[in-house]
Amino acid sequence: MIEISKEEFCSWKKIPKINLINSCMGYKSANLIGTKSADGTTNLAIFSSLTHLGSDPALLGFILRPTTVPRHTYSNIKETHFFTVNAISSPMIESAHHTSASYSKEISEFDKANLSMEYLDNIQVPFVGESPLKLLCKYVNEYEIIENGTIHIIASIEKIFVDENMLLEDGFVQLDLGQVVSINGLDGYAQPSLLKRLPYARPKQ
Amino acid sequence: MIEISKEEFCSWKKIPKINLINSCMGYKSANLIGTKSADGTTNLAIFSSLTHLGSDPALLGFILRPTTVPRHTYSNIKETHFFTVNAISSPMIESAHHTSASYSKEISEFDKANLSMEYLDNIQVPFVGESPLKLLCKYVNEYEIIENGTIHIIASIEKIFVDENMLLEDGFVQLDLGQVVSINGLDGYAQPSLLKRLPYARPKQ
Repeated sequence: MIEISKEEFCSWKKIPKINLINSCMGYKSANLIGTKSADGTTNLAIFSSLTHLGSDPALLGFILRPTTVPRHTYSNIKETHFFTVNAISSPMIESAHHTSASYSKEISEFDKANLSMEYLDNIQVPFVGESPLKLLCKYVNEYEIIENGTIHIIASIEKIFVDENMLLEDGFVQLDLGQVVSINGLDGYAQPSLLKRLPYARPKQ
Repeated sequence: MIEISKEEFCSWKKIPKINLINSCMGYKSANLIGTKSADGTTNLAIFSSLTHLGSDPALLGFILRPTTVPRHTYSNIKETHFFTVNAISSPMIESAHHTSASYSKEISEFDKANLSMEYLDNIQVPFVGESPLKLLCKYVNEYEIIENGTIHIIASIEKIFVDENMLLEDGFVQLDLGQVVSINGLDGYAQPSLLKRLPYARPKQ
């Protein structure tokens, strides 16, 4: 095994350091967050930090760096309180990745990334047409992580749209049936296949 | 597409509800957290909520439910301030999953799950011998998520141990070269394969 101490990786150049630190805690979720500003401009941004927080109430969290590109996501969520979460499937990878390019606020990443803006029911925030699994979420709270100035956004799940073939009888959404991808590091996209589901673990006698 | 409103899934039975909500924001990281209590009992617990928080300083976060099984992890971390993060590879799935069984504090999951306890350098907390990617982490802070009583633990990365074949020249740790898995929902284990890495996205003219 190679051993890399904090002193050592702290002295690395920026790109190798962010590659290493972004990939060393495993696979990340791959989602596009869709929002709309109060004056009607849509925004779409890729996030790899969405995490399950609890099922009852149904809550998720994600991390925002307020000083970088996704700030439009933050200001839109603060204005309207709602956003969409759209799982990224393998045919969407290039388009989804392109949403990380830095565009000014009046430009919609839906246009630039060539993804379909979709409005479902009478919901005012846009979904991604190509995505096989979409959530409507509502802003609940935020916690500033004072250690590095990031913001942990907490949101409730208000509605779920899922491709029929992905939803099993016991409520499990089998992500590989929708070709949903996961993210390795900053820029790697991986295609998982389900190996197995395991029964609830009980102590050995 | 199937549409499931909050009112609808809130009325579902417990198991389908937790299956649905745990799998609807995509793939999760798969890690074992190793700790030791002040009196020397080791603990090992599976976590799917580890998330990258930042690279400079190198920080990660994870979610603890203080009222459920991983409370030994929490009390040990509070006692010693250090813990290990060990990526789960496909040969380790059954053993890793078994650490979620409820054992009393004096029993070590290393024994029950049949995983090798490994001490590296002179570090006092145990690593998992079988894991291809291991981190030594130090407790930094915690934030209580008041919406559901979970705790968001913030930790710094102090040392990285990685299998030589997984570490590329540009610092990227290619997880599939170590058969690292990702988690789908509560109980699904998936094997990802890297499809591609994409260049830094720049705005289209």
